[in-house]
Amino acid sequence: MERITSRKNPYIRHVRQLAHDGAYRREKGEYLCDGIKTLREALHFGARVTSVLWKERSGEKIFVDCEQYECPEDLFDFASPMVNSPGPLFTVAIRGCSKPGKLNNALVLEGVQDPGNVGSVIRTANAFGIGAVILTGDCADLYHPRTVRSTMGAIFRQTVLEMELSVLKDFLSEQGLPLYGAALAEDALSICGLPLQHTAVAVGSEGRGLSTQLLSLCERKIIIPMAPDSESLNAAVAASVLMWEMAKT
Amino acid sequence: MERITSRKNPYIRHVRQLAHDGAYRREKGEYLCDGIKTLREALHFGARVTSVLWKERSGEKIFVDCEQYECPEDLFDFASPMVNSPGPLFTVAIRGCSKPGKLNNALVLEGVQDPGNVGSVIRTANAFGIGAVILTGDCADLYHPRTVRSTMGAIFRQTVLEMELSVLKDFLSEQGLPLYGAALAEDALSICGLPLQHTAVAVGSEGRGLSTQLLSLCERKIIIPMAPDSESLNAAVAASVLMWEMAKT
Repeated sequence: MERITSRKNPYIRHVRQLAHDGAYRREKGEYLCDGIKTLREALHFGARVTSVLWKERSGEKIFVDCEQYECPEDLFDFASPMVNSPGPLFTVAIRGCSKPGKLNNALVLEGVQDPGNVGSVIRTANAFGIGAVILTGDCADLYHPRTVRSTMGAIFRQTVLEMELSVLKDFLSEQGLPLYGAALAEDALSICGLPLQHTAVAVGSEGRGLSTQLLSLCERKIIIPMAPDSESLNAAVAASVLMWEMAKT
Repeated sequence: MERITSRKNPYIRHVRQLAHDGAYRREKGEYLCDGIKTLREALHFGARVTSVLWKERSGEKIFVDCEQYECPEDLFDFASPMVNSPGPLFTVAIRGCSKPGKLNNALVLEGVQDPGNVGSVIRTANAFGIGAVILTGDCADLYHPRTVRSTMGAIFRQTVLEMELSVLKDFLSEQGLPLYGAALAEDALSICGLPLQHTAVAVGSEGRGLSTQLLSLCERKIIIPMAPDSESLNAAVAASVLMWEMAKT
């Protein structure tokens, strides 16, 4: 295991850039994860761990068959996008986007910009057995450290697809999944009593909702009924209630 | 309107301490909110707004019948717990805890420490018409700026009670609400097909779940069924799915 002591070390630079630069993550085909529990999950679920940076004198270490580094606490904190993480930091290879098989259902997120919300939706989708989460429009980056952290390891298990709006329609048609759009609109159908099994449901950003472009692809608009005073739900909460209904057998 | 220019101004100190010091908030009986939309909601829903701090040359101002201050941008940013807020900051009086009337149902949070999660649960409870959110154990402070912000104005509308575990049981008995505890336990009943109307449901922290003390007060343990690989849901997501089921008619 190599011991690193300089902020100018190329690996430290690499880690910092992975944390902060989405384009660099795509270019290098790697993203950054944190914590021994997440590392165990990554290994357990067959993610390709490409390197590990351990914090000196901090907790348990496990053997991982890849490049491994160690550094003093202050340097670790310099490299890490988190404050006071016990570590380790590790890098994982971005999987190539293979075409998924037949999906039972799918949750489409459009323009949800909070990484915590995107991560939380992926976590919930995995818990509820949703076939795929499809990110479209200007969503938070799937590989942003906060997105990754919010998935609580579900990023290693859940099928997540990134798709331009222009191909979404054909994709869902091939899958035989009708697209419903969650909308705070008068003509939206309440989901109470509306079967959502074998559908794709789209949820937009809290501020703006779904784009008119996406809504025009939808077979119907649906709404989660709310008290009159309430304007909206948190995007991750709305998606979770919808996925819960989609998952019901 | 008084113009403030010094960081040492007592009102600026007051605002900063309200932002960072929970005990001070209780002592002063005030908490801090942010944004013109929230200010409108506070006024609309009858919250007692006690003072407003406007950021100079930043957006629209409205008349509020209380102490009003104005300050330059850099001083505003110094006072605000948020980064780059267009303002205004304003203070709201903490309502005295009057005994609520008859509740249809209640959501109990125990030891949920993330202010965003607590705020999100309050927002969802309000949207789903839940009678009360009851905070017990070591939850994030209801009046923490991040909790307040995550409620998206629901803090002005939703009944939220803070209660020691020792009085919770009697309170719920008086209300005629059986207490169910969400638990990742083998003997927990799936909520599928289990009516949750007219119940109180308790959700614990993600890390530790409900305390054995709270579980001992529960009539039954319940579980949201999940895929085998999944360990848990985000606390706010779990609470939201439960409240959705509680609210069904």
